[in-house]
Amino acid sequence: MQSDRVDLNADAGEGLGQDPALFRIVTSASIACGFHAGDPGTMRTAVALAREHGVAIGAHPSFPDLSGFGRREMVLTPGEVEECVTYQVGALADIAAGQGVRLQHVKPHGALYNMASRDPELADAIARAVAAFDPALVLFGLSGSRLLEAGTRAGLRTASEVFADRAYRRDGTLVPRTEAGAVVHDAAVVVPRAVAMVREQAVTADDGTRVALRVDTICVHGDTPAAADLAARLRQALGESGIQVASLSSS
Amino acid sequence: MQSDRVDLNADAGEGLGQDPALFRIVTSASIACGFHAGDPGTMRTAVALAREHGVAIGAHPSFPDLSGFGRREMVLTPGEVEECVTYQVGALADIAAGQGVRLQHVKPHGALYNMASRDPELADAIARAVAAFDPALVLFGLSGSRLLEAGTRAGLRTASEVFADRAYRRDGTLVPRTEAGAVVHDAAVVVPRAVAMVREQAVTADDGTRVALRVDTICVHGDTPAAADLAARLRQALGESGIQVASLSSS
Amino acid sequence: MQSDRVDLNADAGEGLGQDPALFRIVTSASIACGFHAGDPGTMRTAVALAREHGVAIGAHPSFPDLSGFGRREMVLTPGEVEECVTYQVGALADIAAGQGVRLQHVKPHGALYNMASRDPELADAIARAVAAFDPALVLFGLSGSRLLEAGTRAGLRTASEVFADRAYRRDGTLVPRTEAGAVVHDAAVVVPRAVAMVREQAVTADDGTRVALRVDTICVHGDTPAAADLAARLRQALGESGIQVASLSSS
Amino acid sequence: MQSDRVDLNADAGEGLGQDPALFRIVTSASIACGFHAGDPGTMRTAVALAREHGVAIGAHPSFPDLSGFGRREMVLTPGEVEECVTYQVGALADIAAGQGVRLQHVKPHGALYNMASRDPELADAIARAVAAFDPALVLFGLSGSRLLEAGTRAGLRTASEVFADRAYRRDGTLVPRTEAGAVVHDAAVVVPRAVAMVREQAVTADDGTRVALRVDTICVHGDTPAAADLAARLRQALGESGIQVASLSSS
Repeated sequence: MQSDRVDLNADAGEGLGQDPALFRIVTSASIACGFHAGDPGTMRTAVALAREHGVAIGAHPSFPDLSGFGRREMVLTPGEVEECVTYQVGALADIAAGQGVRLQHVKPHGALYNMASRDPELADAIARAVAAFDPALVLFGLSGSRLLEAGTRAGLRTASEVFADRAYRRDGTLVPRTEAGAVVHDAAVVVPRAVAMVREQAVTADDGTRVALRVDTICVHGDTPAAADLAARLRQALGESGIQVASLSSS
Repeated sequence: MQSDRVDLNADAGEGLGQDPALFRIVTSASIACGFHAGDPGTMRTAVALAREHGVAIGAHPSFPDLSGFGRREMVLTPGEVEECVTYQVGALADIAAGQGVRLQHVKPHGALYNMASRDPELADAIARAVAAFDPALVLFGLSGSRLLEAGTRAGLRTASEVFADRAYRRDGTLVPRTEAGAVVHDAAVVVPRAVAMVREQAVTADDGTRVALRVDTICVHGDTPAAADLAARLRQALGESGIQVASLSSS
Repeated sequence: MQSDRVDLNADAGEGLGQDPALFRIVTSASIACGFHAGDPGTMRTAVALAREHGVAIGAHPSFPDLSGFGRREMVLTPGEVEECVTYQVGALADIAAGQGVRLQHVKPHGALYNMASRDPELADAIARAVAAFDPALVLFGLSGSRLLEAGTRAGLRTASEVFADRAYRRDGTLVPRTEAGAVVHDAAVVVPRAVAMVREQAVTADDGTRVALRVDTICVHGDTPAAADLAARLRQALGESGIQVASLSSS
Repeated sequence: MQSDRVDLNADAGEGLGQDPALFRIVTSASIACGFHAGDPGTMRTAVALAREHGVAIGAHPSFPDLSGFGRREMVLTPGEVEECVTYQVGALADIAAGQGVRLQHVKPHGALYNMASRDPELADAIARAVAAFDPALVLFGLSGSRLLEAGTRAGLRTASEVFADRAYRRDGTLVPRTEAGAVVHDAAVVVPRAVAMVREQAVTADDGTRVALRVDTICVHGDTPAAADLAARLRQALGESGIQVASLSSS
């Protein structure tokens, strides 16, 4: 159950200014579709940048929550969630097609991602929207989450995502950001931890327990220059450890 | 240069409450895509209603202007206009595909429609976005306008639209709403005028001049119960005059 | 514990088209402030209409949820709720001041109203924002709710609101709209029921229990011509029963 | 016609991340009010930061154009512009009052600022909104522009603004950003040029002409770390030249 290959993904098109630096490092990018950030122009720019650097792209659909950056939990019916995802994926796919690029994946954003990790109905609504659009799309979700189960039920290929700079609980969920120790800031800790997660397909939880965890893709942050620098060091360390860094869709 | 066939079209999905009445009458509907009105839910509802009543659908893209209902002129680059149209058409096409429905046409909304009627660069940007998405789409525009010329340049089929309740200038443009006599409210005038416009492919301008005018589709309004009633009387009169009322895409 | 006076209030400035009819009937209006509906122009129009008809006005702040009309529950911190209310009240107060009109009250909208009815922290955040702006403002809330308790804690005058066309539980809460029988549509039932609620300051719950209920203001709906007609009949019946219909701020 | 005092102002609350650095340097800040950027939370944060550093604040109202960051020209009636400004100033004033802070000024943003520089009707609409809210507010506008004339007509105190890093035409207008040489990037040029502009109340236009120019406040940019650094150097150079850097409202 070891692995010598992983995808590095980042969120993109959110107006945070680090896209050009990030697209030199990551292998997949999830592009904001206008509901938490972004607009047709930023989407076109992100697609062009991805094409230039050979980065695979996906849609990053959100709750309709521009003022809260999609981080606020909202109560929508499963039907409404399905429509929101359908709308955003279709919009980005059309923008991308105009540049001859096809979508690789869909990764829900923020509160939608978190709620779909634990709520099977919401997860099914997202998976239905993705599968109806294109059954060849890969559904990204938190490793071990309900969202990935829903993807499998809908006949989709899924990608199990981990966060190298976040603490984990023994049940495989993330320690909430509101708790102390939730985020690991020290690159000297994060980088070897990420390499070990890929190698061993496991992580050590905050109580010391060893938790098995499938790792198909690692999320890297790029909201500050320091974050982009960390991503570059991580990519280098993975390569030096003999782990191939490649998108899900590359052969 | 006479015709015995015409399409009746209406704007839809704008939250004005007359969609159910209108969809019994018209043969084509242009659905708001979230930039001047509408959201994924209203788009899905409008598509379902169109499918139920056998009404052909199109996208009704707008400037990003929710607070102004898309009626405010805005200065965007041709590239930005192209991206906005691409985004909205893609979003609606995906929502429609989820119900097994394909788009028939694209009709720009409000200020975008008016500006593209006279500005060749803006018109080309719209036509490019439509042709890139699907060259089989029909581009709706004001009869005689720059927008239709751009559609032809882009290799698209076009539909020349007229407004039975609006006064025309001798150059084929509409008398602006801000001027007296711009809108004809009396159904006893509007209905026979519309029939004559189709039959004769011409209209009498406000100075009495006879103006040749291609008429492929008539726009009917549905923002009040009275408007929907007028549309019904118009459809009946066209039928009694031996004019076939059918969408552009019906054989 | 009887009363011979009541306020009739309606929501306004939501673009539903019934404002002119409603403002002839009601004594207080709660004006949408741009977060669930409305914009500076609709706010100005509603204030002008209120002034013309001598209707007292209030702010109708909402979660930031234009696409969901403020009806979707959202998770905001109490601090964020306080800021949102502060922003919306300030914006409307300034628009109103431009016409020489002062606000009488604040009434939260939709999901914010419902969540604040049962959540003391959210209720306190709203009451704090209102009291900080102007301690003379009246806080409207569901009769018997946490929101009114918070208003009292913040030193505000409160107005207990009832809904004449909604079924009640024995604990004084409303039967949710998703349940059968939640809304009473028959004017022949609604009108005498409203009169009795004011007279007796009580309502019969859905299980037949008699529930004491303070009634300072009755909410009437105006989203359809039929609703505005019902409001007119209600106002007439109240008058014929010797109950004075007047705003909270009138002497 | 020399001066030994000037205000340094920056735009704030636009989510660009440089606010904490900028607020240590500038004496006035114009806070985004939700129409081109910002929301109640960012407004509250910016007000708190200004209070902490003793920076005077103003409203930075914009066209309703979140997706275009307020940089797109839009056609609104003067009445609509007045309502938009009234709404945004009222919202910020209320947020600020909650922290015991009063507004010093109003400075229109982006396309609204530019259009009001040359359009007297638009300029009057803005000045009317500001004067109606509080006649003690200072109106910021491009030095020599129609906006400042409108402010004077409305009885307002005005502040003439210059841009140290922008090229000027001989008529005192800015060279548009789309032209070569419009922006001066070299700090070694910008800093002494700004000092000279204040000292001499004049600037050398792009054709070498000397243009008299009233200078009450200099706009500094803070959208990158380099920009904030330039602002700091500018402030130091002004001080070393014996020019007092102080807000308009300080005595």
